[in-house]
Amino acid sequence: MSGTGRRVGRPRAEQRPDRGLTPRGELLDAAAELFTTLGFGATTTRAVAERAGMRQATMYHYVSGKEDLLAQLLESTVKPSLVLAAALLAQSERPAEARLWQLCRSDVELLCGGRHNLGALYLLPEVRAERFAPFHRMRAELKGAYRQLLHRSRPGGGLGAAELALRTDLVFGLVEGVILIRRSDPDRPVAAFAEATADAVLRIAGFPLRDEAWGAPAAGA
Amino acid sequence: MSGTGRRVGRPRAEQRPDRGLTPRGELLDAAAELFTTLGFGATTTRAVAERAGMRQATMYHYVSGKEDLLAQLLESTVKPSLVLAAALLAQSERPAEARLWQLCRSDVELLCGGRHNLGALYLLPEVRAERFAPFHRMRAELKGAYRQLLHRSRPGGGLGAAELALRTDLVFGLVEGVILIRRSDPDRPVAAFAEATADAVLRIAGFPLRDEAWGAPAAGA
Repeated sequence: MSGTGRRVGRPRAEQRPDRGLTPRGELLDAAAELFTTLGFGATTTRAVAERAGMRQATMYHYVSGKEDLLAQLLESTVKPSLVLAAALLAQSERPAEARLWQLCRSDVELLCGGRHNLGALYLLPEVRAERFAPFHRMRAELKGAYRQLLHRSRPGGGLGAAELALRTDLVFGLVEGVILIRRSDPDRPVAAFAEATADAVLRIAGFPLRDEAWGAPAAGA
Repeated sequence: MSGTGRRVGRPRAEQRPDRGLTPRGELLDAAAELFTTLGFGATTTRAVAERAGMRQATMYHYVSGKEDLLAQLLESTVKPSLVLAAALLAQSERPAEARLWQLCRSDVELLCGGRHNLGALYLLPEVRAERFAPFHRMRAELKGAYRQLLHRSRPGGGLGAAELALRTDLVFGLVEGVILIRRSDPDRPVAAFAEATADAVLRIAGFPLRDEAWGAPAAGA
């Protein structure tokens, strides 16, 4: 089993996991795996605790239950992009389209990069519940950052509010749509795909390809 | 309750539904509602039968169970687009980009148009099972039609296989990404959004907006 790095669930009340995760991290990883492979509804808290090598009673020291785990997993798919978006919005000396491109690339890398396709959990009916309001607020805030960068870009500056909102939807839809693409093709190399998606976003925004229009962004930017 | 047009589940073994649906159609509609609001895992066959106003034993005259209902619902989100795609591929006298635009618009209208957001079911872990192989084949076939139309379009003709595959993924991802957009904003008017998505697909394909490049398609085309 060690070749795949996956463990089967077995109680390890004393032994700590070997991937350097905190108990909370171990629980989140176990929940991510079970929610995306078995389904949220079909996963019990007991199964999560066992998968994480923990007694069920111990689990409740760290999380309040399945919904708590789901909310944290969902928020983890948005928070890093929100932090980057705030930094990019402040970089008013850089062209907005370069910042938009960078946000898209990073967001796609985040959505495609983890071990589990957490974006697949966005569409669970359970996520409509009040418990997930913070996740929905974060996602709306991230979308707002896309809208602002679009608005500040050269083609976006002349758009009316309705057209800007529509274009923001398309851009955000393309970025989040990678969740569906990843589902069909889980082993796709992420980096080139993230750049191609960011290029496509600029096309939707009204730009030709980035290197034709405003030069490739600096490496590692 | 009649104001909303929704009925609560109650056995109506004799009385037929009032929306003109066949028993099978009634079961599919009930399943669509319950799978998208309550969740697939949390929905019992008994709940589907009750919602459809049918005894559970009667239900098995029409469908073999929950997976059968799910498979039929999933296939219904692809079949009409496949039929259109076959017709469009045969229309070799029309510019490929006009046909690509039409397929996108129609596909988005299909994904956004029904009473329930069935695309949300694409991401269920259960859909990986062998029972859903026909659905996956249909979806792959539809994606193949997009690829062919892209390949036959003027900007697509010069693309290498890898670049064509990548661009097909982006186009297909944008079209299916409307599932996520619809989830966030269920009351969006469909027609304008479908056209805007089709415009965006042409941009990704390497075209400027359709009316700049090759004229708006005929009304009703």
